[in-house]
Amino acid sequence: MNNFTFYSPTHFSFGRGTEKKVPELITRFGGSRVLLVYGGGSIKKSGLYATITEGLKSNGIYYSELGGVKPNPRSGLVYEGVKICKRDRIDFILAVGGGSSIDTAKAIAMGAKYDGDFWDFFCGTPITDALPIGTVLTIAAAGSEGSGNTVITHETKKKKWGTGSDLLRPKFSVLNPEFTCTLPAYQTASGATDIIMHICERYFSNTADVEVTDRLCEALFLTMIKETPIAIKNPNNYEARANIMWAGMLAHNNVCGVGREQDWASHQIEHELSALYDVAHGAGLAVVAPAWMKYVMTKNTNKFLQFAVRVWGCQMDFEHPEKTIVEGIERFEKFLQSIGMPTTLSAIGANVRDIPKIVDNMKIANGGTTGCFVKLNRDDVTAILKLAN
Amino acid sequence: MNNFTFYSPTHFSFGRGTEKKVPELITRFGGSRVLLVYGGGSIKKSGLYATITEGLKSNGIYYSELGGVKPNPRSGLVYEGVKICKRDRIDFILAVGGGSSIDTAKAIAMGAKYDGDFWDFFCGTPITDALPIGTVLTIAAAGSEGSGNTVITHETKKKKWGTGSDLLRPKFSVLNPEFTCTLPAYQTASGATDIIMHICERYFSNTADVEVTDRLCEALFLTMIKETPIAIKNPNNYEARANIMWAGMLAHNNVCGVGREQDWASHQIEHELSALYDVAHGAGLAVVAPAWMKYVMTKNTNKFLQFAVRVWGCQMDFEHPEKTIVEGIERFEKFLQSIGMPTTLSAIGANVRDIPKIVDNMKIANGGTTGCFVKLNRDDVTAILKLAN
Repeated sequence: MNNFTFYSPTHFSFGRGTEKKVPELITRFGGSRVLLVYGGGSIKKSGLYATITEGLKSNGIYYSELGGVKPNPRSGLVYEGVKICKRDRIDFILAVGGGSSIDTAKAIAMGAKYDGDFWDFFCGTPITDALPIGTVLTIAAAGSEGSGNTVITHETKKKKWGTGSDLLRPKFSVLNPEFTCTLPAYQTASGATDIIMHICERYFSNTADVEVTDRLCEALFLTMIKETPIAIKNPNNYEARANIMWAGMLAHNNVCGVGREQDWASHQIEHELSALYDVAHGAGLAVVAPAWMKYVMTKNTNKFLQFAVRVWGCQMDFEHPEKTIVEGIERFEKFLQSIGMPTTLSAIGANVRDIPKIVDNMKIANGGTTGCFVKLNRDDVTAILKLAN
Repeated sequence: MNNFTFYSPTHFSFGRGTEKKVPELITRFGGSRVLLVYGGGSIKKSGLYATITEGLKSNGIYYSELGGVKPNPRSGLVYEGVKICKRDRIDFILAVGGGSSIDTAKAIAMGAKYDGDFWDFFCGTPITDALPIGTVLTIAAAGSEGSGNTVITHETKKKKWGTGSDLLRPKFSVLNPEFTCTLPAYQTASGATDIIMHICERYFSNTADVEVTDRLCEALFLTMIKETPIAIKNPNNYEARANIMWAGMLAHNNVCGVGREQDWASHQIEHELSALYDVAHGAGLAVVAPAWMKYVMTKNTNKFLQFAVRVWGCQMDFEHPEKTIVEGIERFEKFLQSIGMPTTLSAIGANVRDIPKIVDNMKIANGGTTGCFVKLNRDDVTAILKLAN
């Protein structure tokens, strides 16, 4: 096990009706003038917007608003938010929505305490100050509600970059699974795939003797395998939604990733897919991950055997362990298909002829490698994308 | 799943050499005048005391000392610590040792910010202020390094009571598994049993649809079942010690207990065993738990089947599921014996004739019940202790 630091100071309120605690939580964590960041109309339709804004008003908490956050959140809205924060002397940012709203709030939080361009922090400027933020989560997927990271797409610079700091960890996050019940099946499955891949990127590690985090990863895998099909079949099944929502936080606050090298190659490759094609992040990951597994499986067979036996319930074939490995990956791929995810490039409208373009857009296009479980150069990534065809 | 709050804001530094970070961490969390709380000579022998005190000196951090903490920590030392804090204008408490040193530090932290008797907080006075504390852990067992709870024995009032608050959660905890390598086998096994029982008390719950926390509990059980025998056989096996140490924190910071009713009857019964006989807490739990299981197993057979199959690897006997349940409990009991734990009253020097005395000392002696999985009255507890004979 490697040395590590683990710091997850967010206060989580989980369950039905917890959105009513928002004013009390803002006050507890020092807020009095709030910027409310959210996406589209869904929180107005569900009544969540009304509950939050009425709660702020009746508790005498001033608020400004910034709606309109879209998936793959953009820099334009961040600049706007920073301006509002400075103009209205905002001292707390509340994000209501999914990962895009939360990531936007985190970027604004840095920019509001800085005289320069907030984008500097995405280019290496150390983060030394940020407004406190809180979140009310409505989509189980990104895990931003429990992490210190943010990913923003800069519209004019055409970059989708990330940054992170303990200062960006939400002071509180409110998780009411009821608000995820209205998500369509495809978005539910995309979110579930994102959660599963946050575990995968941590699970596939060459660090030895990490039984406790291996087992925690497997606990979350098994939970997602059980609960995702239930939520897709019965969108209003509160219990399935609750298990998925809490697993989604745990999959990315790093409790199951500490003390071990992590991979993240599949995420790096997928970034370029969702940049080129209009595909949900989880769906892009469903295309990349099985191909990545088929390509790297011979490099650390023990881990893939463990994945097949402990996660996918395969019988260990002691005579032909390679068959067990293949069976595990097949079961994973079939699971993704069973929840409605695409698993081939063609299923997301991509083409084998696009592969050079995809690879050219990656940071490794001119040398270097991506991933840690197996270090991949551009030829490796090309081969993986061909396997995904 | 029930509604819940989860708040674990402690900053954990884990691994070899992390004790050198103590001065930096104290400064980060606002300390400048420290009370150093510790037990006996083991931290002096290991060199940990020298590393810590030299680090404080070379960073210009003032410190006072309070040594001599003993297992089942007493009020006398707490009163002494409170006096030192007020006299020396202490603003941060650093506990170096196991759960007893940490629990003592937590009690002092409350008393130092209070004009009355610190014991008031153990009798229901709400905790509204406390000095910040940090810990350097040397024993994997109690989980106090990640929790907001403390248990103190009041010497003149003859009570062993607990209390808790988010204000008592350590600001930071430093966990270097190397310092646990010198623990004798019996203490290692007692600590492991305490950890396993912190999971058990959460696992045996009637709350339905808690797959994610069930799986997390099972992850920690399986880790302890694998790693404990390794650490006992090879005390210097760093990797086994590391897995146990991190599992010990996770077993009690409540990450695997949220959203579900918890039991805690075995702990309540054990308190009276360790009060009457000079027995380690973990060893007392090893006597009580298998008997408790045999007594309650028919009340929620599904949970016991899950325990047998998922944790102990029993083959499900579909024709006679009750046999599978019994086999699971037997494997648990044999595991405890295999790591050197007593599992009968006589093995800890207790006698069946003492049972009425044990039960009379419990809070339920004059009515009421203990436990949640099955509510136990004094007749039930008597029956359980007879099964432990």
